[in-house]
Amino acid sequence: MILLYNNIRRVGFVRISSNFFSKRNLYSSVIDNQKKMEKFKLASKYESGQFNVWIEFNNLAMITKPLNLGQGFPDYEPPSRFSNFLAEVATEKNLYSHQYTRGMGHVRLVNALSKLYSSLINRKIDPLNEILVTVGAYEALFCAIQSNINEGDEAIIIEPFFDCYEPLIRIAGGHPRFIQLLNTKPYSPESHSSDWKLDPEELESLFNSKTKLIIVNTPHNPLGKVFDYDELTMIADLAKKHNVLVISDEVYEWLVYTPAKHIRMATLPDMWERTITIGSAGKTFSMTGWKLGWAYGPANLIKNLMVVHQTAIYTCATPVQEATARAFEHEISVLGTPESYFQNLCKELKPKMHFLSNVLKKTGFKPIIPDGGYFIISNWKIFENKIDLTLETDEYRDLRFTKWLSKNVKLQSIPFSIFFSERSKPCAEEYMRLCFFKKDETLKEAEKILTTWTSKLS
Amino acid sequence: MILLYNNIRRVGFVRISSNFFSKRNLYSSVIDNQKKMEKFKLASKYESGQFNVWIEFNNLAMITKPLNLGQGFPDYEPPSRFSNFLAEVATEKNLYSHQYTRGMGHVRLVNALSKLYSSLINRKIDPLNEILVTVGAYEALFCAIQSNINEGDEAIIIEPFFDCYEPLIRIAGGHPRFIQLLNTKPYSPESHSSDWKLDPEELESLFNSKTKLIIVNTPHNPLGKVFDYDELTMIADLAKKHNVLVISDEVYEWLVYTPAKHIRMATLPDMWERTITIGSAGKTFSMTGWKLGWAYGPANLIKNLMVVHQTAIYTCATPVQEATARAFEHEISVLGTPESYFQNLCKELKPKMHFLSNVLKKTGFKPIIPDGGYFIISNWKIFENKIDLTLETDEYRDLRFTKWLSKNVKLQSIPFSIFFSERSKPCAEEYMRLCFFKKDETLKEAEKILTTWTSKLS
Repeated sequence: MILLYNNIRRVGFVRISSNFFSKRNLYSSVIDNQKKMEKFKLASKYESGQFNVWIEFNNLAMITKPLNLGQGFPDYEPPSRFSNFLAEVATEKNLYSHQYTRGMGHVRLVNALSKLYSSLINRKIDPLNEILVTVGAYEALFCAIQSNINEGDEAIIIEPFFDCYEPLIRIAGGHPRFIQLLNTKPYSPESHSSDWKLDPEELESLFNSKTKLIIVNTPHNPLGKVFDYDELTMIADLAKKHNVLVISDEVYEWLVYTPAKHIRMATLPDMWERTITIGSAGKTFSMTGWKLGWAYGPANLIKNLMVVHQTAIYTCATPVQEATARAFEHEISVLGTPESYFQNLCKELKPKMHFLSNVLKKTGFKPIIPDGGYFIISNWKIFENKIDLTLETDEYRDLRFTKWLSKNVKLQSIPFSIFFSERSKPCAEEYMRLCFFKKDETLKEAEKILTTWTSKLS
Repeated sequence: MILLYNNIRRVGFVRISSNFFSKRNLYSSVIDNQKKMEKFKLASKYESGQFNVWIEFNNLAMITKPLNLGQGFPDYEPPSRFSNFLAEVATEKNLYSHQYTRGMGHVRLVNALSKLYSSLINRKIDPLNEILVTVGAYEALFCAIQSNINEGDEAIIIEPFFDCYEPLIRIAGGHPRFIQLLNTKPYSPESHSSDWKLDPEELESLFNSKTKLIIVNTPHNPLGKVFDYDELTMIADLAKKHNVLVISDEVYEWLVYTPAKHIRMATLPDMWERTITIGSAGKTFSMTGWKLGWAYGPANLIKNLMVVHQTAIYTCATPVQEATARAFEHEISVLGTPESYFQNLCKELKPKMHFLSNVLKKTGFKPIIPDGGYFIISNWKIFENKIDLTLETDEYRDLRFTKWLSKNVKLQSIPFSIFFSERSKPCAEEYMRLCFFKKDETLKEAEKILTTWTSKLS
């Protein structure tokens, strides 16, 4: 505003000799206009949703054109079987493929989801009342949080966390309470995501009468941690003891590397009644652009999500839902066989994960070996004194380093501190996140880039 | 809750002789459980979003299997040209067709929208900052209202109105202020949507210092009214005088029957700066199931919608956006020629509108002839004393009549009162809404149904 005002003053300065009054009018009309427009600033409840680091880093990539290991999706095509389902739906002569379908989820899709998850959680899921189909897992999170958080409620978030959790809680009027996963083996020669653990006493200390929910993300983005039975039981017991809801973000449920095993929160004793589980077609079928997700849980909880959904969106795209239903039906028919995409994808990704981990180790980084997901967190501190980050102006060192790397080494990663609350960001500054769901050639190119760069450093 | 408690008491009664303590435990554990679950009821801000009449009427149609003129979409296939674009995108070897695209709108789509609307409103629209792509016009309305309404703000809604406007305002913490379009020619032998007008003095009386926005819907659903230049100017002048925002819902912009003409609010003098215009691919290409919409307006306003969008959804489905972009590019290239779908659709629908209007007139109804959209509002009062509605229990007579019609005559319509605030519903009870975007055979079947039924009435 000051800048604009100064510009106006300058304009005014040119005019002053010719007409003092017109200058005054110009001042006041521009200032009046600014005042008028003040009325239309963003509604205050959304203030905490303004900053979005993904947009900043996507824009950076457009400028620096790096080898991009930042984005969380493959740089090669998903199986044509799945995309062909969408083409099939688009062309076949079915009147209703291109018109509104059932608001809470296309019937064929909720039936397929019910069939799959009923067998996975060993409980019959009612397709019409216990499942909601959403615009990606993102909208499912939005609905779960908006429908549960009242002004002043508290929600427990485990750090690091998928960055939208915090603004979602704040926008709904809630207060996030944070707890960090801590590296229990800081001096171990090789770091694993399973070394990062919650302190049960610290976790319990966060629960009080205002606690409405806790968000659990397993397999975990960005750490790649797969919570084990004891860890989940510890969280579940606290949730039951303090009568708290669990939002279980399980979008990477199929991306788990043996011997790790994904355990669904809703399968723990007495947890069904207080768990909303969130999944994603984008992650399941490696088609993030389909933007289809879901939430399942007991009818009394899902009913509330449905109210938010019908207010914000009403219904999801029909052809995408129909195609996703067919993809699930196919996968259900081959589950446990060598044809299963869910199994094959892990087999495909595990060597990529090892390859990138080895590249990182051999070039001097310290990666944290993940048990799930498609990201590796890596410590970059060793390079800090070998490069000049003074041209980068961000507050946190990992933002400076990742931007510098994108500009100077042409390799894009994502800073780790964006997955932490303001208070905890300093703990995350020595790390970055890399995605290994990329073509082998891309990963080899990353090896070349990192080897060339590090070999030049003294 | 009382019902559940009584059931438990009955269960308890059977057990009382065998074990008094287990009965007491059963009581208290069920009541405890109810108390526990009370904590997880719907967040209070969403209470006004719970009821949704569309779900009720869709469920009714599933049971009664009527000839359905309730739903607002065609019962025949849209041009295969458009659906083929989706099939093309799904199958072609483009790495990025199935992955996340730009959050605020796929670049090819916002470019096409910018090209089209820049020429229609005679002003260059910046595709990256002045357009937001949304999950249908529905999400655009959600974003526009959520990003502007603070607790206590007032919003003016013109009755009748698309039923989601009211809960959207209330959920955001705002207070809707209603004004009715009134039939200025109640004794005219034939009723037209253009006879329904706002009283300018009454409208001005609703503006005050708390008024944040007014929602204008032209062409209007459900009345089919197309606001003329003088009417829009009257509203625009009040918006400017009281520094109020206009949300202009123009989803039926291409569905206007000559000589009526659609005028875009943003083209009126000095209105660009305070207008958010909302459009829909579903309505534009007759593919409601694609669930793609947009909002355009000045960057300072659209920026706020973007914050809500990135919080709730993040991005829309990529293949649907790419296909919609291609559909627009094609339409832009044939605009004004006999190949234009926008023109041909009106030519296709106008005879359908006249056919259904004539059927209604000849069977005793009093239709309001629309200038736009694909609905006819019709007065059904003449039948009230000829049929027995006592078995229907709804408060409002139009709900009773439309449900009775669906069950007994097997013709589904939508009650008019759902498009009014609670206070005004009694004014709407003698009307129903019918959709004429249906196959000619469907409309002929409607003629047969209505002729057969009315001929039997004395």
